[in-house]
Amino acid sequence: MADPADAGEWRDYLSTLAPELEFRQWPDIGNPAEVRYILAWEPLANLAEQFRNLRVLYAAGAGVDQFELTQLPDQVSLVRLVDSSMADIMAEYVLYGVLALHRDILTYQEDQRGGRWQPRPIVHASQRRVGVMGVGNLGRAALDRLQPLGFQLSGWNRSLKNVPGGCCYVGLEQLEDFLGQCDILVNMLPLTVETDGILNAARLSCLPRGAGLINVGRGAHVVEQDLLDALDAGQVGGAVLDVLLQEPPSRQSPFWKHPRVLLTPHIASDVQVEGGVAVIAENLRREEEGRPLLNLVDRSKGY
Amino acid sequence: MADPADAGEWRDYLSTLAPELEFRQWPDIGNPAEVRYILAWEPLANLAEQFRNLRVLYAAGAGVDQFELTQLPDQVSLVRLVDSSMADIMAEYVLYGVLALHRDILTYQEDQRGGRWQPRPIVHASQRRVGVMGVGNLGRAALDRLQPLGFQLSGWNRSLKNVPGGCCYVGLEQLEDFLGQCDILVNMLPLTVETDGILNAARLSCLPRGAGLINVGRGAHVVEQDLLDALDAGQVGGAVLDVLLQEPPSRQSPFWKHPRVLLTPHIASDVQVEGGVAVIAENLRREEEGRPLLNLVDRSKGY
Repeated sequence: MADPADAGEWRDYLSTLAPELEFRQWPDIGNPAEVRYILAWEPLANLAEQFRNLRVLYAAGAGVDQFELTQLPDQVSLVRLVDSSMADIMAEYVLYGVLALHRDILTYQEDQRGGRWQPRPIVHASQRRVGVMGVGNLGRAALDRLQPLGFQLSGWNRSLKNVPGGCCYVGLEQLEDFLGQCDILVNMLPLTVETDGILNAARLSCLPRGAGLINVGRGAHVVEQDLLDALDAGQVGGAVLDVLLQEPPSRQSPFWKHPRVLLTPHIASDVQVEGGVAVIAENLRREEEGRPLLNLVDRSKGY
Repeated sequence: MADPADAGEWRDYLSTLAPELEFRQWPDIGNPAEVRYILAWEPLANLAEQFRNLRVLYAAGAGVDQFELTQLPDQVSLVRLVDSSMADIMAEYVLYGVLALHRDILTYQEDQRGGRWQPRPIVHASQRRVGVMGVGNLGRAALDRLQPLGFQLSGWNRSLKNVPGGCCYVGLEQLEDFLGQCDILVNMLPLTVETDGILNAARLSCLPRGAGLINVGRGAHVVEQDLLDALDAGQVGGAVLDVLLQEPPSRQSPFWKHPRVLLTPHIASDVQVEGGVAVIAENLRREEEGRPLLNLVDRSKGY
């Protein structure tokens, strides 16, 4: 059930790394009862009824919020196909976004379009506080890329994590303190019931005035009208957005033309076929040996 | 002769690191014959006649092309106030520019302004060849920042230098070969008679089609009409320009509105007062001990 354009690539890697698997491409899947593993980008209708012998649903992406977790039968494992190269690509984008905001590029681009040549003071990376929300595999990879540049780093996470060269704020009770010291805020959270709409007007008002925002999580993490209001009021100085609530946004969306918004079409990262197949192959071995699967989603947490 | 806005900062650091120096700020310099060291951004008229006992002219910037080297008396040393933090800041900008071109940000910004949501394939850093012209202190700092991201690196220099993880092309006879393998070209050369206009139509045509250009050297390195032609023909896919031949450019300059150009107002780096004063203080010691000065410009090479 891969994107047809990529199906050949998935088939090739699977035939090398997991030759014992028979690859069937949607919609030519034969008898659904024979299907034990599904690789999917989008939720499937009647999954439980159609695929009675399904063991693992592989979600081709970093997030699993598109799948209705409560409708998955208990015996079906949900696995995220995250690999280190996907994390590297995401971290590269985050590094790009942080540098763009750190070096005032949105302002300089407004100046360029307006015909103004106006150098502004350079702020040392050591004076710039960058905070990452969500310190999982992806968040950690981004922090590791940012650290050598000398930024002051911090993280915010549901549970305590190691933040290289900085401290980790934990849970909702420390969220406001965390936000209060983020000159540049990077959202890398998974989308769950708890994180939906987490960046609302009240949270954005905790940021230092003029802070930058990078969103590579999900559009729904941000209350978009609140962000627009904060941008227009100067409370948020600029935003680098790779995700929106509606993708593509409507023609009328103010994000298209907003001078303080740099918008990219959900390209911060993408599943890497080779790494994704390596996860599948490793999980076949683990299943045989009765060991816990790699990248298994904890349904109680939603990621 | 510091920028008046910064003079206080220079004075403070000098009084700490080199308290034996008396600091005089232009135009209140008293008897010019008493002046032994000058810190200047711009050339001074009649320098040799006015400052008969001048020993060192400190150029507050990475380049010294603004000074007329032939008019400096032989006994006056010309020293560049480059320090490692200046190199770090420049490297940060170069990293920003490389990531912007590597991740197709200019294209996505055109898409944003045009209301198009069109993801393009992600190219792995390992498949992207980045070449740096000028592998001195600044070039090396930039290469060191780029290397951990996995880019294929190369350098081009007048003399052989160590390029981390890549090879160094040397001299004019290897320039075309060097350019032929630069998906992203970073100009960090000093401006000399040999490098003036080095990036002309013939050189730009050696690049792989659609290559990106970053110029943090001097505007005069690039033949601007040739670059505009190459951009319009698609031979150069995008340019991140921090310097132009005329700064600020005229109102009519096509660089202001060019959709494939990201223009910043000569802010890639700046002299760092603390580091600059450290160079002056170290050179006072070296002068006393009769040792060669730090960052002394070789007038025969022009940098």
